[in-house]
Amino acid sequence: MKAREPAAKRRGIAKAAATPPLAARTLHQSLLRELQAMAAEKDSFPFALGMPAAELFPRDAIAEAVRLVLSRDPVALQYAVPFEPLKLHVVKRMAARGVACTGSQVFLTAGAQQGINLLVRLLLEPGGHAVVEDATYDGMLMALRPLACRPLTVETDLESGMHVEGVDAVLQSGARPAFVYTIPDGHNPCGVSLSVAKRARLAEIARTHEVPVIEDDAYGFLNYSGPAPPLVRAHDAQWVFTIGSFSKVLAPSLRVGWIVAPEAVVARLSILKHSSDLDVSTLAQRAVSAYLDTGAFDNHVATLRREYVARRDAMGRALEAHFPSEARYRVPAAGLFYWVELPRRVDTNDVLRVALAKERVAFVPGRAIAADDGDRVSNFMRLSFSACTPERIEAGIRRLGRVVKEALR
Amino acid sequence: MKAREPAAKRRGIAKAAATPPLAARTLHQSLLRELQAMAAEKDSFPFALGMPAAELFPRDAIAEAVRLVLSRDPVALQYAVPFEPLKLHVVKRMAARGVACTGSQVFLTAGAQQGINLLVRLLLEPGGHAVVEDATYDGMLMALRPLACRPLTVETDLESGMHVEGVDAVLQSGARPAFVYTIPDGHNPCGVSLSVAKRARLAEIARTHEVPVIEDDAYGFLNYSGPAPPLVRAHDAQWVFTIGSFSKVLAPSLRVGWIVAPEAVVARLSILKHSSDLDVSTLAQRAVSAYLDTGAFDNHVATLRREYVARRDAMGRALEAHFPSEARYRVPAAGLFYWVELPRRVDTNDVLRVALAKERVAFVPGRAIAADDGDRVSNFMRLSFSACTPERIEAGIRRLGRVVKEALR
Repeated sequence: MKAREPAAKRRGIAKAAATPPLAARTLHQSLLRELQAMAAEKDSFPFALGMPAAELFPRDAIAEAVRLVLSRDPVALQYAVPFEPLKLHVVKRMAARGVACTGSQVFLTAGAQQGINLLVRLLLEPGGHAVVEDATYDGMLMALRPLACRPLTVETDLESGMHVEGVDAVLQSGARPAFVYTIPDGHNPCGVSLSVAKRARLAEIARTHEVPVIEDDAYGFLNYSGPAPPLVRAHDAQWVFTIGSFSKVLAPSLRVGWIVAPEAVVARLSILKHSSDLDVSTLAQRAVSAYLDTGAFDNHVATLRREYVARRDAMGRALEAHFPSEARYRVPAAGLFYWVELPRRVDTNDVLRVALAKERVAFVPGRAIAADDGDRVSNFMRLSFSACTPERIEAGIRRLGRVVKEALR
Repeated sequence: MKAREPAAKRRGIAKAAATPPLAARTLHQSLLRELQAMAAEKDSFPFALGMPAAELFPRDAIAEAVRLVLSRDPVALQYAVPFEPLKLHVVKRMAARGVACTGSQVFLTAGAQQGINLLVRLLLEPGGHAVVEDATYDGMLMALRPLACRPLTVETDLESGMHVEGVDAVLQSGARPAFVYTIPDGHNPCGVSLSVAKRARLAEIARTHEVPVIEDDAYGFLNYSGPAPPLVRAHDAQWVFTIGSFSKVLAPSLRVGWIVAPEAVVARLSILKHSSDLDVSTLAQRAVSAYLDTGAFDNHVATLRREYVARRDAMGRALEAHFPSEARYRVPAAGLFYWVELPRRVDTNDVLRVALAKERVAFVPGRAIAADDGDRVSNFMRLSFSACTPERIEAGIRRLGRVVKEALR
């Protein structure tokens, strides 16, 4: 046989080449694991990852729910069809988010990320387009990459959220994206919530142009200024998919989330899900459902909101006290993130390197979560306030403030 | 705007069109859910699904492992990097299957199906080829469909397993498949185990043609005639990926499986997995590891083997007693399945319809798990002996025997 490069290697290279070789992406991929490991260390300040506070998980109640399910339900460890009572709990929770749906419109997933991945694989042809904000959840960007998707980006207004008229302009120009992706409450990374008027307008744009909207409601229950406005799906149930999850409000390791979708699409999602990993854990579905049966969820979420407000406000005070006056940010009304803007001349990738090395403080630099080259957001940093106590937040932001001030010299 | 068909609908139709519209596939998709629901009913005979016996799950030990983990490990409910101690347990288990590997070559997955899906998405370009047996695990076929893969099929010898010289012939002919898929022990659906000589030869073919082999070892620990021969990967660690799972030997709802792969590939699998659904449940990883720490696994697997041998032999006796003499089958040395051949004139799809309606007996007809048009295996049926007691097996096979005899009249 002729000597040649191993086929799998060639294939691997071909695959990698189909992916935009953004340094930002690579940075973030290696960073993520480093930051995850670092977050577990006692003397670090993990403002990078959007991890919920582990000490706030209802650990005993979840343990009790698992115990109960295993003691009474002989098929809890078996393969099984999706658990109807859990779907009905989701229906009830979605009603609180302004979305009227039925159990047969609820499709259970292994967390919100699987919801994103399945919808991307369902809607997007290889090499196709999707509209995303130019700073957005990196999990969506990761899901787009294997399909060699070219994102069409719009900006995000820091007061009112996604620039929906920009979406309209993209569509008016004749582009045929597979979907429009948005995060209506507690935007990741911008912290902003989409205004009521924009929610209605986005639904109208979807309907007019017949383009699906995927709204990612992963942080939806973590709203700190009274009830959030109804979701985009409340304005159009035909063109809007809503993704939800128990990861942030119960615990990530349960791996239970959902998509609200038209019934016909649910059947197709089911085939794709089955080919991906068969079931959502039967045990986890039943344990979450048993936990929700106890009625403890509302109080638990109220506790989370109270604790996260305390952390959010501690971070706000610390930013005020320790960051230079040129830094600009808004206090988020939902979610887990501050989005801090520094003067244009600062590249937050550089700030991160120093912050990690000298102060053991982590955050996500703008470029790492940019859908394009990241130049517009190279001077931004995403700071998560969820994973530290108010005292640790004060200490960490003080340290980070030193690095930022140094960078501004 | 011009009236036009909704974009998502058009896209959906395009996607469906890219999929081979085999009636067998459609039958199986709807069947699967029907059979899964039926399996839960008391008076049915669920010989269709490859479900492990729920009453043999070590339910108390798993409950205790979950309790222990939740009581002592504060991050068990959090996002986390893959759990090293579990990887080391897998290393030890793989050694028992003849595979020498290190923890850094073990990639944890949400069950074997996710291992299949990730490898398919890693190795296969849309529209590419893969070599599979003409009757094979339908989860692999499902994973191939969204990529519009055209399977290249080889037959399976019912004494010695996959026709590996057929694989060589396909490759000699110049085809460049992304991989070759096989199930070395307790083949699904054929029940056969790959001969020692063929394992070595398949590894040699992979090496010579530089084509990866995916070996699916989902049933590997369920071998009933003493230790199984070393896996294909034992013969080549560069070109062979081994997929394993705790679903059949502990419990499916834990959703914990693995791939043994070269370290460089593990890093790429990690990115693809992260974009799919982030982590394997942190809690499940730790609970499985805690269970394995107790040392109870070997005894548990010994119990499973004993019980499954009793069921296998009960089914063998019942087939002997109640099936017509024209029916041909071999007693499987591993796994969960009999593969029964009826005379060519019988289509087991027809037999299934009658068996379900008149006798409440389910099985998988050959066409439903065929990689091609299914004509070669249209007279076969896959019978799973795992989910019923010996008494139920005797009663169900007696009923099914009546239907089969009727079909032969």
